[in-house]
Amino acid sequence: MDTQTATIASNYDADVKKRFNRLESLLAEEWKLILEQSPLIRTIMEGKADKRLFGLYMLETYQYTYHNARNQALVGTRSGEMPVKYMKFCFEHAEEETGHELMALHDLMELGLSRDEITIPAPLPATEVLIAYLYYVSANGNPLRRLGYSFWAENCYGYINPVISKIKSTLQLKDSQLTFFVAHSNIDEEHAVEVYDMIARFCKTEQDWQHVERVMLVSLRLQGRVLDDVFEAYKRLEAGNANEYSFLNKLG
Amino acid sequence: MDTQTATIASNYDADVKKRFNRLESLLAEEWKLILEQSPLIRTIMEGKADKRLFGLYMLETYQYTYHNARNQALVGTRSGEMPVKYMKFCFEHAEEETGHELMALHDLMELGLSRDEITIPAPLPATEVLIAYLYYVSANGNPLRRLGYSFWAENCYGYINPVISKIKSTLQLKDSQLTFFVAHSNIDEEHAVEVYDMIARFCKTEQDWQHVERVMLVSLRLQGRVLDDVFEAYKRLEAGNANEYSFLNKLG
Amino acid sequence: MDTQTATIASNYDADVKKRFNRLESLLAEEWKLILEQSPLIRTIMEGKADKRLFGLYMLETYQYTYHNARNQALVGTRSGEMPVKYMKFCFEHAEEETGHELMALHDLMELGLSRDEITIPAPLPATEVLIAYLYYVSANGNPLRRLGYSFWAENCYGYINPVISKIKSTLQLKDSQLTFFVAHSNIDEEHAVEVYDMIARFCKTEQDWQHVERVMLVSLRLQGRVLDDVFEAYKRLEAGNANEYSFLNKLG
Amino acid sequence: MDTQTATIASNYDADVKKRFNRLESLLAEEWKLILEQSPLIRTIMEGKADKRLFGLYMLETYQYTYHNARNQALVGTRSGEMPVKYMKFCFEHAEEETGHELMALHDLMELGLSRDEITIPAPLPATEVLIAYLYYVSANGNPLRRLGYSFWAENCYGYINPVISKIKSTLQLKDSQLTFFVAHSNIDEEHAVEVYDMIARFCKTEQDWQHVERVMLVSLRLQGRVLDDVFEAYKRLEAGNANEYSFLNKLG
Repeated sequence: MDTQTATIASNYDADVKKRFNRLESLLAEEWKLILEQSPLIRTIMEGKADKRLFGLYMLETYQYTYHNARNQALVGTRSGEMPVKYMKFCFEHAEEETGHELMALHDLMELGLSRDEITIPAPLPATEVLIAYLYYVSANGNPLRRLGYSFWAENCYGYINPVISKIKSTLQLKDSQLTFFVAHSNIDEEHAVEVYDMIARFCKTEQDWQHVERVMLVSLRLQGRVLDDVFEAYKRLEAGNANEYSFLNKLG
Repeated sequence: MDTQTATIASNYDADVKKRFNRLESLLAEEWKLILEQSPLIRTIMEGKADKRLFGLYMLETYQYTYHNARNQALVGTRSGEMPVKYMKFCFEHAEEETGHELMALHDLMELGLSRDEITIPAPLPATEVLIAYLYYVSANGNPLRRLGYSFWAENCYGYINPVISKIKSTLQLKDSQLTFFVAHSNIDEEHAVEVYDMIARFCKTEQDWQHVERVMLVSLRLQGRVLDDVFEAYKRLEAGNANEYSFLNKLG
Repeated sequence: MDTQTATIASNYDADVKKRFNRLESLLAEEWKLILEQSPLIRTIMEGKADKRLFGLYMLETYQYTYHNARNQALVGTRSGEMPVKYMKFCFEHAEEETGHELMALHDLMELGLSRDEITIPAPLPATEVLIAYLYYVSANGNPLRRLGYSFWAENCYGYINPVISKIKSTLQLKDSQLTFFVAHSNIDEEHAVEVYDMIARFCKTEQDWQHVERVMLVSLRLQGRVLDDVFEAYKRLEAGNANEYSFLNKLG
Repeated sequence: MDTQTATIASNYDADVKKRFNRLESLLAEEWKLILEQSPLIRTIMEGKADKRLFGLYMLETYQYTYHNARNQALVGTRSGEMPVKYMKFCFEHAEEETGHELMALHDLMELGLSRDEITIPAPLPATEVLIAYLYYVSANGNPLRRLGYSFWAENCYGYINPVISKIKSTLQLKDSQLTFFVAHSNIDEEHAVEVYDMIARFCKTEQDWQHVERVMLVSLRLQGRVLDDVFEAYKRLEAGNANEYSFLNKLG
């Protein structure tokens, strides 16, 4: 990914390239913190993940992904001045993200559950906070700022691929059982280019760039907390204190 | 158009075809009323329209078209169960409609106004009522029902082409000065097919069809009232009582 | 009422009083049109209303009243600059209007229906258009403009009391069977004073007053169309073509 | 406070009292964590707070309090079934909270700033996350769940009074310079009783109580993060890296 985004940023002239490099380096720092500190990531990287843990993670992925197309489109529905190209990007991108939560659900089922065996509970607190934040950002403030979320979300494979690979080998999964990540890493390469393009084209002021930077950092931190809540729910499940997830015990 | 929509409806099996034929025939009745009773239409068909009248009409077209992509996308942002294909249709269709108000503005300018000479006032009351209704329909009730608006809006050229032709000859306009109508009648042929398809595919119950029928009729009636408000504003402008539109007098 | 509102307006200094008098006189003209042209009103005033007709009217009153507290409060939830006193008015007024739809339902039952016998159908088209317009006005544009609706709604008893009296004598109803109108005409005297006060205090510019005037006229016209739709639904019911209202036939 | 809420809970019968006691004890644990771990609280309790630190805190208090009346009222504007008494509570409570952000602003000015010297920047990230969460909770899911926020917010004086007292003595402030806290601790005693009452009256199912419990815990945790962000911003200000707050240096 370093190579890939380096390439994307290098398409722009010096000033914009410098700004992208700043975003990329802040992102790298933030990911470093998450990857080092998250007990969920550590457990996975130590080869200790089981299907219940990964299932829980896919369930929360389902939860927030359900809202991604919706809040992406919401940006474009706002009244007021918005560049036509940016509105079109919002709707087109929303269309492409529509239904992706079903891939997460598919991958959960591939672990060994039929659809009937899955009772989807409310999202975990950290997941709901992430969802709430993305709707708020999409509906309020600078309309460009949701690009800060896309900036890391479409660009995360450099960081999370090692984690996914480890999951894959630990749980002996095939690509066809990891559709959410495999499909996204393909789709998102193109998206990442478009996201860079939107940012470069429409962020005109210092403030525009700051809004994007802030939403990038805040939403990634909130995503980090989702990992923590997933791990905590897993510990509760192991201890027999998470009835709402007991359907996952079939996998354990 | 009769031929065209007849063709579209005839792609479906007997039961669905019958339902489409009912929608088409209700639509034909409603258009007949509007075309016969509207003083705006009468004035145009008698060759008495001037550029101010057409300018006023394009201004209101600008007003509601500004909101069409927005309320179309809003349907897809709603939470709850919605078929993936229908959500995608909402976003894709919204993307295609984005910025179409600029065509209306372009055509207004082509009548003989520079952008600086145009001060866009608030929409006329009937236009604001139409806008309000479409947002309400898009955000509330059966998510399929906004298709009732698309059903007539994407299918209106059989009814309004004679009116546009008359305007064109009376005001001696070229196709390049009527981009809104020319572009839409091309785009919308394809859209009409998609709208029939969405309705046929997702209207499962008697109620679904009734919701679509109702929104079709109500939104077309509200559109008819826009024509009436445009004509009334024109009369006020002629009488020197419509200051907010006085910039149009340059065309008169 | 003439006396009452004259008194309210006379509390203000010459300029504001003149503006209120303009609103009042536009209102009087609009009511005159409605009262003269509405076939529903004519039928009532000729003593020809039956319980089904009044029941239908109360049902639509239920429908839009259900939304009044909600859209009133919505005004206060908008972000941006708003005077504290006006926000407080919005919430306080919303609180007072909460549940008033239940009075309309009570009065419908008093005509001779138990709660179980009433199946509330969707609002009539004109009622839904009124509801949609009030939400749009409450959520968009000048936040003061919803006062235009309150201006006539809290002040309508001078116009409609003769109609209610006629209904009362024709159908031989007691005050306790007309709680919606009796309670409102009491509550609303005080509200009318507050509405005048809010308008006088916060309408600073010519535009503010125009927004209020426009919403007053448009919402009253939309209310007039509700009367027309009620009458048309009644005719359908009489002709046996309004299944959704057939439960009212028990009253006929 | 222990005494106070103990008294409130003891008004209810055994089952409801037990549930309140659970909420209260979870709340006590959560506060304990916040009070012990927050570097902001520690700094204050060690008598090391300066006016800039307290000013920063009042600024963020201004930010989220600005939205409290709005999101409280939003609960009541939702469509669907809602008890009349609960809707009324939402609007009445919103009315009482309206404008309270101005008390926070007043207290900030009392530290030694004129209104012109204050340039209100965007809320800190943690503050915006709290705001976003409260809007989401108010607009989505179980309508009762926002009571979980009120439950701790109207009931927090037992926990924060020692902190406010310490601030007061450290910065030598009078009650008239602490209007936000002094006014609230008076108003909120009554509110707390009403909040208990709403919860006891309308939480019928296990799920209702769980929703309230969850929002109580999540929103209090998010509030704890606001304290952390305030402290971090203070450290940046001290280090000369928080330009947006440099107006506070006049107090330092």
